[in-house]
Amino acid sequence: MPTLPPAKIGVPVSEIDTPALIVDLDALTRNLEMMATLVRRFGVRLRPHAKTHKSPIIAARQIALGAVGVCCQKVSEAEALIAGGVGDVLVSNEIVGARKIARLAHLARQARIGVCIDQADAIPLLADAAERAGSQIDVLIEVDVGARRCGVAPGRAAGQLAAQIGRSAHLRFAGLQAYHGAAQHFRSPDERRSAIDAAKAGVIETVRHLADAGLACETITGAGTGTFEIEGRSNIWNEVQPGSYVFMDRDYAKNTLADSAAAFDHALFVLATVMSTALPDQAVVDAGHKALSNDSGFPAVWQRPDIGYHRPSDEHGVLTLADGAPRLAWGEKVLLIPGHCDPTVNLYDWYVGVRGLGTPAAHVEALWPIPARGAVT
Amino acid sequence: MPTLPPAKIGVPVSEIDTPALIVDLDALTRNLEMMATLVRRFGVRLRPHAKTHKSPIIAARQIALGAVGVCCQKVSEAEALIAGGVGDVLVSNEIVGARKIARLAHLARQARIGVCIDQADAIPLLADAAERAGSQIDVLIEVDVGARRCGVAPGRAAGQLAAQIGRSAHLRFAGLQAYHGAAQHFRSPDERRSAIDAAKAGVIETVRHLADAGLACETITGAGTGTFEIEGRSNIWNEVQPGSYVFMDRDYAKNTLADSAAAFDHALFVLATVMSTALPDQAVVDAGHKALSNDSGFPAVWQRPDIGYHRPSDEHGVLTLADGAPRLAWGEKVLLIPGHCDPTVNLYDWYVGVRGLGTPAAHVEALWPIPARGAVT
Repeated sequence: MPTLPPAKIGVPVSEIDTPALIVDLDALTRNLEMMATLVRRFGVRLRPHAKTHKSPIIAARQIALGAVGVCCQKVSEAEALIAGGVGDVLVSNEIVGARKIARLAHLARQARIGVCIDQADAIPLLADAAERAGSQIDVLIEVDVGARRCGVAPGRAAGQLAAQIGRSAHLRFAGLQAYHGAAQHFRSPDERRSAIDAAKAGVIETVRHLADAGLACETITGAGTGTFEIEGRSNIWNEVQPGSYVFMDRDYAKNTLADSAAAFDHALFVLATVMSTALPDQAVVDAGHKALSNDSGFPAVWQRPDIGYHRPSDEHGVLTLADGAPRLAWGEKVLLIPGHCDPTVNLYDWYVGVRGLGTPAAHVEALWPIPARGAVT
Repeated sequence: MPTLPPAKIGVPVSEIDTPALIVDLDALTRNLEMMATLVRRFGVRLRPHAKTHKSPIIAARQIALGAVGVCCQKVSEAEALIAGGVGDVLVSNEIVGARKIARLAHLARQARIGVCIDQADAIPLLADAAERAGSQIDVLIEVDVGARRCGVAPGRAAGQLAAQIGRSAHLRFAGLQAYHGAAQHFRSPDERRSAIDAAKAGVIETVRHLADAGLACETITGAGTGTFEIEGRSNIWNEVQPGSYVFMDRDYAKNTLADSAAAFDHALFVLATVMSTALPDQAVVDAGHKALSNDSGFPAVWQRPDIGYHRPSDEHGVLTLADGAPRLAWGEKVLLIPGHCDPTVNLYDWYVGVRGLGTPAAHVEALWPIPARGAVT
């Protein structure tokens, strides 16, 4: 039941039905290439997080630029990515439930699959499912390096889990998942560095315990768009998982950068139309909660700092103008920079890829389905 | 690209893959019947808002119980509902853009279609499209009765628009859309009554202007789950548009009721699984922003007031326990009452209809697709 694509190939932006999820194809390419270049310099592996884009087409571009594979969070995302041709997927999350684990084990027949655990109970379930499927699964132990969500405490616990993993011929202890989600959005470089320094200490302690137990730790993976340069240069992490860099959202753009080469561009927009100018001091657009995830703040209007977005309801948003700002016309289109890209992408069936966005020649060049949209299980 | 259904017919709740959107079929039936009974007593028409459920299956049940048709907000929602067999749809919203208006006019060949306007520019565009499609569209004028979103001011403006509508043989002036969205969520009965009393004064003034211009106002429609009893008894509105009553969400349950017969039950839940108990003072569930729309507050845990839901991220939510509350086990399932039903439904491809929810015999009885999910255009 996907919805119809909101435009045809070749049409100008004015002919795209709204709200629509727009990808600036030029900015996307710049972002993909910049990340590939930066991570190559660090000498670590790049495994971008596909939870952001949910698209095997974008994953293929990342892999063509040197990524070893991708991450995702859900088995159903992995199913969509592997069906689209991705051959190496790390589910950087705990998977619980017999039906899901059986699906994961089945996927491991078709692609290299990794998954995270933080609890011993998961190990026999994974082992049994992989045995039944005749597959092998890489298992990483998630360590809580400060996000206080999932993950064992740094130190001894990981050693005990790793030893148990090794007892099944269908599981392989592959390393540590050490991702500090909250730190990605700390605004100052000092806060981010301090959080990742603390995470690093926890990882070092955990690796020492593993070594004491005679266990090698092949992969230490983690990091996001907000901190990947710190982990990338750490000499501890050997794989980074940034996701949002492909699109950049308004929230990430609030991070203050310093000593950073990571100047990613906004490449994702929601195109909206002014549908009412009945009240003189505002313009109502056709993009509300069902078109934008507002969990990390409201969108900004592209290149119009004199316009604010307010009071979203399910299908409406209210734009207010600063004093003296040119009024918006009924039917006019505006580009909104989402507050948070991942859950905004999750609201759409199609990317509308635009070439030359912001120029008079701007036109629709690509319509990409989003097969891992809604992939919650 | 719909995702696979998260369960099979007949299985117990424990075998549903999570997160999943659960409908308590018993509670749904009670809600549908209660609304039909109440509105029949008022002697007004019931036109439920399908923006809540997005399902022609539920719309058919509403119509079987006496509803004259349904409302929705988007052309693509109307397309999905009409494809599913609904014969009378009011798009209770302004539709802007040539492509959308052409689609709307085409739909009017297959079903009775109404649409709202608040601006004269819309009239020739609708008339031309309906002429090209060989169809007729009912046009309602939206009056801003206090929500300060779309709609003309009460009074003279509607008369001018109505006269213009009447000039096209393909359009028919059908009445007024007078919906006070904000008032639905005012917590006290007095606040809600006072807001709708003010709205009523605006409608009466507008109807008087129309009458002065010799224009009859066949339909006066509006109202939602929070206020429909007030409009229903007003002797002004002759049609009500409640939507959320089918499911009830946590936000609506915060409204204080008085002199109200409208005791709807929670019929919509997100089933989630405890995926990590690594930290002793919390349990992490597999339902975050992609499983719940948190725009109107976080979910409650069904029948467990001693558990709080906090700190959602995209794929995780954190449950914290009150002192002395029984701990949640790894792998345990919990039912969450969404903060806001409409945008939460928008995140799923499937309703999992459960019979006997909360009893030992609870099992999956129905899997209903949600064809207007993601219907944003």
